[in-house]
Formats: sequence, C-alpha cells, structure tokens
Amino acid sequence: MNQHCDLALSNARVISMTKGSEGYTPSPLCHIGITNGQITALSLEPLQATNTFDCKGKLVTPGFIDCHTHLIFAGSRADEFEQRLKGVPYQEIAKQGGGILSTVRATREATQEELTELALPRLDGLLRTGVTTVEVKSGYGLTIEDEIKMLRAAKALEAHRKVHVSTTLLAAHALPPEYAGRADEYIELVCKEIIPLVAKESLATSVDVFCESIGFNLAQTEQVFQAAIDYGLTVKGHTEQLSNLGGTALTARYGGLSADHIEYLDEQGVLALSETNTVATLLPGAFYFLKETQQPPIELLRQHQVPIAIATDLNPGTSPFADLTMMMNMGCTLFGLTPEETLRGVTSHAAQALGMSDRRGQIEIGFEADLAIWDASHPAEFSYFQGAPRLTARLVAGEFDHV
Amino acid sequence: MNQHCDLALSNARVISMTKGSEGYTPSPLCHIGITNGQITALSLEPLQATNTFDCKGKLVTPGFIDCHTHLIFAGSRADEFEQRLKGVPYQEIAKQGGGILSTVRATREATQEELTELALPRLDGLLRTGVTTVEVKSGYGLTIEDEIKMLRAAKALEAHRKVHVSTTLLAAHALPPEYAGRADEYIELVCKEIIPLVAKESLATSVDVFCESIGFNLAQTEQVFQAAIDYGLTVKGHTEQLSNLGGTALTARYGGLSADHIEYLDEQGVLALSETNTVATLLPGAFYFLKETQQPPIELLRQHQVPIAIATDLNPGTSPFADLTMMMNMGCTLFGLTPEETLRGVTSHAAQALGMSDRRGQIEIGFEADLAIWDASHPAEFSYFQGAPRLTARLVAGEFDHV
Ligand SMILES: [Zn+2]
Ligand SMILES: [Zn+2]
Repeated sequence: MNQHCDLALSNARVISMTKGSEGYTPSPLCHIGITNGQITALSLEPLQATNTFDCKGKLVTPGFIDCHTHLIFAGSRADEFEQRLKGVPYQEIAKQGGGILSTVRATREATQEELTELALPRLDGLLRTGVTTVEVKSGYGLTIEDEIKMLRAAKALEAHRKVHVSTTLLAAHALPPEYAGRADEYIELVCKEIIPLVAKESLATSVDVFCESIGFNLAQTEQVFQAAIDYGLTVKGHTEQLSNLGGTALTARYGGLSADHIEYLDEQGVLALSETNTVATLLPGAFYFLKETQQPPIELLRQHQVPIAIATDLNPGTSPFADLTMMMNMGCTLFGLTPEETLRGVTSHAAQALGMSDRRGQIEIGFEADLAIWDASHPAEFSYFQGAPRLTARLVAGEFDHV
Repeated sequence: MNQHCDLALSNARVISMTKGSEGYTPSPLCHIGITNGQITALSLEPLQATNTFDCKGKLVTPGFIDCHTHLIFAGSRADEFEQRLKGVPYQEIAKQGGGILSTVRATREATQEELTELALPRLDGLLRTGVTTVEVKSGYGLTIEDEIKMLRAAKALEAHRKVHVSTTLLAAHALPPEYAGRADEYIELVCKEIIPLVAKESLATSVDVFCESIGFNLAQTEQVFQAAIDYGLTVKGHTEQLSNLGGTALTARYGGLSADHIEYLDEQGVLALSETNTVATLLPGAFYFLKETQQPPIELLRQHQVPIAIATDLNPGTSPFADLTMMMNMGCTLFGLTPEETLRGVTSHAAQALGMSDRRGQIEIGFEADLAIWDASHPAEFSYFQGAPRLTARLVAGEFDHV
C-alpha cells in the first residue's frame, strides 16, 4: 500500500523505540510518510508525497520528551550559587531571602507574559537537544492566581516555539510563607480551590506533590491525590528523593503516571511501581548538583521491569540544566544506565510518564509525527559525546523546525 | 584622550578579569574601543568610532580560552561507551580493538582535511560557550607524519571559524603499538625527530607528555622536556592524574606553563608549582566521566596562590564534552571552586597556561580584542545555569561573530 503523503522523509535510518531491542537498532534506509501531522507510512520503498526531505542516511528518532521540568520561573539564583560556594551556610542564605522562596517571590511579581519570555532561552536549550514535548510544572506561585498564571505562561510557550507543552499542577511544591505553621490549611486550599479551578479550566492534566520531610507528608499527599482523581486529573509525585517516606507506593496506589527522583526507594516501593506499571523518572541533574550519594535502585527497577524515564528537572535551585542529552550522559555516568535505557527514558518511557504512550515517543504508524533528525550513526551517541551540535531538524506534529 | 577607533562597543558592563576582585565585578556602563584587532580604549565616555555596537548593558568578558583539548581525532567511541555500560570488561574492549588505540588507528587513516572537517562540530560546541582561543594537542598519530598531520589539521580550523588555535605536540601521549616494549626507542624518535621537525616548521609552541604509570615515566618525560627546551619550545604535562609520580614538580622545574589534571598532587608538588608560577589546569570533565574520587588539592592551591585554569580536556575516551561552561559548573559542583575561580580559569589563568597572559584573557588596553558578549547580568551565571543559550556574540581579534 503506497498512499500519497503530505511529507516523506526519505533515506532515514529509523530508531523507532518500539518495544524490544529492534526498537533501538537503526533500521535499513527507509521512508517515513506523514499526513495531517501523523505518521501514516513506514516503508522500505520510496513514498509518493507532496514534499520529500532526503535524510541521506541520518538517524531519525522520536522527538525527545522532557517529562519533568520547572521551566517557568522568574529571578536568578546565580548569587545564591556563588554564596554557597564561598561557604555561606544555607541558613544564612535563607535568612537573606534566598532558597526556593526567592523564586516564589520573583515569580509572583512577574506577569504571565514575562514568565513566558524568561522561559524561552531555557526552552531553546532543551529544543536543541532534540526535545519536541516538554512537561512544565507550576509550583512557584503557591496562590490560586499565581499557580494559574504559571500554567498559562507554560501553555503560551507553544505560541512561540514548535513544541508540545504538557502542564502539571504542583501547588503542593512548598509551603507558602503566609501559611507558615498551617500546612493543612494550605493543602485544603489546594484541594478545594486550586485543583477544582485548574480542572475546570483544563490548565493541567496532572497533579504533582513534593512528598518529603521538607515538603508535604503522606497524609497531605494523599489528600491532594484524592482531590486530583475526583476532578479527573492524573497524579505523579516527587518521592523518595531525600528519605524513604512511602510516597512512591502511594503514588502507585493512586494509579500515578510516574514517581520521580526515588533515590531512597526500597524493593517494596519498586514492587509497587511494577504492579501498576508506573514510570520511575530519574533526575540525575539534581543528584549531581546536590552531590547526592544515595543511588536510585537501578538493579531492582530492571529486575521488576519498571519503565525508567530520564528528565532534566530543570529548575533554578537544584538542577540548572536546560540540556536533556547531558542528563542522558549523567544517567549513564552517574547511575550506570545503558544508552538504550536513557534513550527509552526520553522517548517511549517519557511518553508513558506523561500518559501519552499511545501517541508519542515511538515511530509507528498512527503516532504523532514528532521526530528528530540527527547527524549521527550510533544510537549510543546521544548519551555519549555532549556539546557538539548534532541535531539537523526537529518535526513537531509533522512540521519542520530546521536547526 | 578620545582617539578614533575602528569599532566601539558601547554600553558594556565589562568583566575585565584583571587581577583582584575588581576584575570580576561588572563595571558601570562603559565603552570599549578597538583598533587593528586590539583593545585601544576603555572609557566611561562614548568613543568616536567608524562602527559602533550597542551592548545595551550586557556583560562583556574576555573571550574564553579552552587551554587543554584533544579536539582533533577520527573515529567514534560511542560503541565502546555502550559496551562499558553493558558491563563488558575493559580488557575485553581493548582486545576487540577499543580504547585509545582505536582512536589512533582511525586518526592515522584519516586525511588532514578529514580531521579538520570532523573537528568542526566539536569546535562549534566550544564556540557557543564563548571560546575564542582553543588549545589543541596532537597525540593520536604517534608517527612523525601523523602527528604533523594532526597539528596542521588543528591549525586549519582557523580558516573555517573565527578562533585562535594554539597547538601542542603530544607525541608522548601513548606508546604506539608498533613500539610495544620499546618505549625508550619511541621517546628517542620523539626527541630526535618529531620535536626538531615540529620546531623547525613552527607547528606547535609547546610540548606535552602523559607522565603516568600507563603513559611515560619520569625519566622519559624529562628527556622529552629537555628536547623541547633545546628546540625553543615550552613544556606542559599531563601529571598526577591517577597517581603521584612527581611529574608536576618536574614540569615546574622545566619552567612549564601548566601541569594538568593533578588530582593526586601533594603539598610538595603544589609548592613546586607556586615557586615557578606554573598554572594548575583542572579537568573536571575527565574526573566526572571516569568517576574519580580523588579530589585535586584545591585548598593547597589556594594557600600557595597557584593560578588555576579549567579546561574541557575534550577527547573521545575520557572527556567527551565540547562545552566549556559545563566544565566551569563541574569545577564548582565537583571541586568546590568559586564562580570567580572558574571564570579566571577560562580567561586570565587559561591565557597564562598558554603563555599568552600579556595579550589575552583580560580586557585591558593593549590586549587582543577577543571578547564575548553575554545576555547575563551576574558573573556567576557562566558556571551556574547550563544549556540555555546566553552568548550574543564573540569577537576574535576585533572581528564580530554573531550567534
Ligand atoms: Zn522537580
Ligand atoms: Zn588531556
């Protein structure tokens, strides 16, 4: 069957990222047909198409998916970074107004348009490492208005760049200063006002919680998850980053899409993920930047066949990296992942972490034509050599964005 | 005095990197005059100039200097990277023809033109992190012809991009396979044939040796240094990376420009550097990639006021990173350097490591107009947030290269 396509990518060596090792092995020269933004043909024979782009034997992968970022924020923490390295204690920095609350303050002061504008260079960093879908969390507003402003600023990125933005409400990121000592009251605001409004206005598809001793406890996390489910939203968690509280198992119990960080996760927690096919999202940039030593349970995740995703966790406090392939390198170098695992971690498994594994993250007929064309020959190259530009073009829903 | 300039950069906030903390502090809005490729005026008043570029308050730094790279090579080690992460032992990889000798084989097979061509994307990676001068070592040829081919390929980069290339002969990088068991004979070839020819044809200004148990011993290193000095070349060393052999003190004794790596350096070695004002060049990319745990003696280097440089060590085996600012981030994150130390490490101190501290690495009248203009406001930003494009333009000898 050789129907006419809108666009054909000819002479592509396709890394489809379908299940099994054949999904990681570059195909023989083949042809990808695209119609109405979808992949409609994959063929060893040339395709009939209105437009044809000759890939000349280059590798074509699914567009990369960064499934965990805090891309929207205002203010700089460069000065705090410097203070810390000069030996100023964290308490002193916090007293001077540093830390996450300085980002909250600056984000509250910024307009929605300013937040979008400030995020563009960071987004550009991600795009040049092959990203076509980026998840963006709120969580520096911590009021109804400011959380909504962040989510709208994130969505507005799609008007400035060829990219899909997936938004997540993370109102339960930190306790806003005006609620000091009243965490339960804040959680009530999140559950009774913020989640309902975000759901009603379709501003996010997921709800996330920072479940940690310095974040919110298990009971509070569960309240937020319950409210999310009640309003038709999916859930995910920042869990087991600094200690083993059980947030991951809770996330799994609520059918969560992913549990993220999970350095302190034990076998019971891994089993919980396995049972619900919840993605384990590893964030090596934060591990590196915080000089953590507790390794995520890679071997257990493999044993129990938990899908592993890799993301930047892009944020000003703990992972100042707008570079997804460098995170793949850190996944290999710091966590001992294989290049195949990291490539799945930014394609098929990242799509799963966003609830999109039926449409994105693989090169298959019926999937969205989100693709990256690379001047590379070996699929390990993405996680290996960093910094030398290799991306030739991205396609988002079948539309070209040449580098 | 307000003489007429070829070019004026107006409204610049200058980070001059002259000695002392004022060199790190952004200046008030000022104007840089450039004539014949040199900085000829620095003024708070507007300058008369044939052309003016309005920096609009952006930061202007000296162009960054990557003072230690192995930019020229052929072949890919992506497959080896993958094998290693799949648990294949190093001996097995070496038996299959992997390791440094695979790079030597591929480099010998490539033409000079191919080597230049292959290096361009890596060079582009460095340039977009603000680099205007790059040092490039030979060391994958290991025959007279192939070492010379590498040095010429490096020099030829200047015809393709706006950049200064500083070349270093590193014939004593590894023992070529055809000299197995005859290291002294190879060193004789290096001293009696390669160095004289390279000096005669002005193909390099410095000579480097990998002084290590798996490289060349102290006596062999000294022979090479002596030959270099005899032929009017300066010396530098890959020293104390994996053990404390005394190569650093030897390098200092020969008036070396820099001793590089130096994780295993002890206080005696630090004192030797201090006495001769030899630069300690730290290579955090290799430290990270090899998962080293032995920290370079940062506190001792500070105590004894040894100038510290930071470089990529860009190479396919142990530091696959074409990104100098990420190395600055690693210098801070992994070694605890301050942002000021890392910025000196890629400007004034890197210039010193290449014997150019009177002409490059600072913004001063009489210095070459190698500059970088950044969309940034705090001098810590270079080592802090990574990946988001920030460079507006580079100037190399007064000529603009807009991003
Ligand atoms: Zn996060
Ligand atoms: Zn080196």
